[in-house]
Amino acid sequence: MTTGPRHEYYLLTPGPLTVPRETHEAMLRDRNPGGAEHIGMTRDIQDYLLQICNGTETHACVLLQGSATYGVEAGFQTLIPKDGRLLVIVNGFYGVRLREIAEAARVDTTVLQLPTLPLPTRADIEAALDADPAITHIVLCQAETGTGVLNPVEMVAEVGRERGIKVMVDAVASFGGVAIDVAALDLEAVFISPNKCLESAPGLAIVLVKKSSLIAAEGRCPSAVLDLHHQWDFMQKTGNWRWTPPTHVVAALAHSCKRHAAEGGSGPRLERYRRNWSILVNGLRQKGFTTLLPDDVAIPIIATFNDPADPAYSFKDFHAAMLNRGIEVFPGRLTSEGTFRIGVMGDLYEQDMQHILAQMCEALEEIGVTLPIGGSAKTMETA
Amino acid sequence: MTTGPRHEYYLLTPGPLTVPRETHEAMLRDRNPGGAEHIGMTRDIQDYLLQICNGTETHACVLLQGSATYGVEAGFQTLIPKDGRLLVIVNGFYGVRLREIAEAARVDTTVLQLPTLPLPTRADIEAALDADPAITHIVLCQAETGTGVLNPVEMVAEVGRERGIKVMVDAVASFGGVAIDVAALDLEAVFISPNKCLESAPGLAIVLVKKSSLIAAEGRCPSAVLDLHHQWDFMQKTGNWRWTPPTHVVAALAHSCKRHAAEGGSGPRLERYRRNWSILVNGLRQKGFTTLLPDDVAIPIIATFNDPADPAYSFKDFHAAMLNRGIEVFPGRLTSEGTFRIGVMGDLYEQDMQHILAQMCEALEEIGVTLPIGGSAKTMETA
Ligand SMILES: Cc1ncc(COP(=O)(O)O)c(C=O)c1O
Ligand SMILES: Cc1ncc(COP(=O)(O)O)c(C=O)c1O
Repeated sequence: MTTGPRHEYYLLTPGPLTVPRETHEAMLRDRNPGGAEHIGMTRDIQDYLLQICNGTETHACVLLQGSATYGVEAGFQTLIPKDGRLLVIVNGFYGVRLREIAEAARVDTTVLQLPTLPLPTRADIEAALDADPAITHIVLCQAETGTGVLNPVEMVAEVGRERGIKVMVDAVASFGGVAIDVAALDLEAVFISPNKCLESAPGLAIVLVKKSSLIAAEGRCPSAVLDLHHQWDFMQKTGNWRWTPPTHVVAALAHSCKRHAAEGGSGPRLERYRRNWSILVNGLRQKGFTTLLPDDVAIPIIATFNDPADPAYSFKDFHAAMLNRGIEVFPGRLTSEGTFRIGVMGDLYEQDMQHILAQMCEALEEIGVTLPIGGSAKTMETA
Repeated sequence: MTTGPRHEYYLLTPGPLTVPRETHEAMLRDRNPGGAEHIGMTRDIQDYLLQICNGTETHACVLLQGSATYGVEAGFQTLIPKDGRLLVIVNGFYGVRLREIAEAARVDTTVLQLPTLPLPTRADIEAALDADPAITHIVLCQAETGTGVLNPVEMVAEVGRERGIKVMVDAVASFGGVAIDVAALDLEAVFISPNKCLESAPGLAIVLVKKSSLIAAEGRCPSAVLDLHHQWDFMQKTGNWRWTPPTHVVAALAHSCKRHAAEGGSGPRLERYRRNWSILVNGLRQKGFTTLLPDDVAIPIIATFNDPADPAYSFKDFHAAMLNRGIEVFPGRLTSEGTFRIGVMGDLYEQDMQHILAQMCEALEEIGVTLPIGGSAKTMETA
């Protein structure tokens, strides 16, 4: 088997990521936003994304210009009434981000601050709800990209259903990889990105919204551009977006949805990521590295490694040595300092991972790190 | 001279438009938003756009994800205090749009409703301001894309300066073509699009803001994603965007700015559009067509033609016949029904215009219109 690079440049962030060449090529043409092709692409994206999360009957797929965060804020501003209160579950960087967005948007917010691990329990959630009966909505990250923790969305959705509290999920980093059943979980909203497990170009936001809630939200949003109801209603009636859509980015996403379907959907895609993840994690463990998280709570879209104890190691030098090799790696985020992260999403297969692993070892040796390394921090414990 | 098509597909809307092939090709690569190349591209765009409007000393260039309308709303939400009042000058479709955005964003609004022509006069503006002393801000379109009218921004800015009222300009359709001096006019904000006279791909918004006003606006915006101050401050400090930028669209715009500079800036670009416009307008006038507007108030970025009186003419058939020829033309907008519009911005030169003109004549004859046409509506009068 060859182990050469399939790409001149590998972008191993947890999104944006290495987009397949063919998807790039979908951006080589201009399209009229009101023309049949663009209207068809928009509809195909909406239909496909609803289909893969069992939302066709119950949910609406709203696309909007921006980035995933725009979808999150639009969801908060459109769906939470003025007298509502949002419980934000925080156990990492993107949980903090959810809180910041809610606060900036003047949403009344209660924060449930938790450590990275152990995972949130039913008792944690129930205690937070008991302590604050004003709470009407809950939001949490499915995959906390800051660390790689996969949060128990099903449990939170169940508690929400029991108490009549609406649950919103930031599935930005997980949708298209980790399966989610929006109808069975009766989710109020799910926030998605094109440039994570869907492997497309950044430049728009996607929000799946419970249809009855969306219809009830007409006129509520105190913003023109963040009004999910109006955007959806306009698209239903005209096929077009309310304002000029990012036509090239839309074309890329339409193509990415077809690729996702051709791969067999979220299951096979996550299996590929798991294989990518295993090649990398097993390879680096053999060189003495440890992961931040135990394997059973880690989502195989990124791997977070503890820094080597070797004093020759610096992330900056490692990053530069990798970049010289056409590969971009990422530092840990706030909540997980002393780590580096490698995204395994994107147009990556076994051949790519073998190449990346080999280059990592070369780069580490180049900056003076002795392999296998003598030590790195211990993997966290789940309890 | 050859007169064949240079593009397989011509998109003749007043933006999005026919993007040069090379600009498309800038989108064929992934980039790390936090990497040196992307940070450099972002800074180059900001610097260039400020430079061409004489804003380097006085203004800040804020980029944000979305479409031009996002920039307009972000400007309103960030810059107008809660006790402010906005006068919206409306003389066409995009004036109406400005009003809708202000109202959706819960900005207190006074509307100065004017006909398409004559152009707004100093007396109109002064009377509106006299009638409502609560007004703190004015907004108007520079180029009213709904009709092609070029509004007297300089006069309005002068009245604003005299009275201490801040003036915001929707230069979405004109920036990069029609020169504007943000420092001399002391403009509070100018709203720009990448996909009009800058000839790039849609997918982001640009706002030029008076620096002192932007700094004073810290913490005011009731939105995370529409907060121009926070986005700008974060970019100043990190070089990065606050949320994932549309990296491919940013790369296209960085390239488009270089093309704009290479053409010689806004002056030569508008001259090219004027030549394009003349070829088209002279050509169709010889076939009996009339324009909606007299030439002296029309901006040469689109040409708006009155429909032919010939009963064989229907816009739908004409549009379809043109599309068969790889050329997309546009209907009039609300305020100018009974017209069709041809954008002359984008990667269009004399050769393209001759081709387009010839195809229009063929398409009209194909749908049964006899050329030269017997009649069409009269051109409007300026007074
Ligand atoms: C879990 C999660 N939520 C939200 C975001 C924010 O998305 P964006 O930067 O596209 O606005 C990210 C981006 O990495 C993420 O991983
Ligand atoms: C004058 C003017 N303002 C605003 C807009 C809205 O821009 P967007 O559709 O990118 O939000 C347009 C678009 O054509 C325009 O011509």
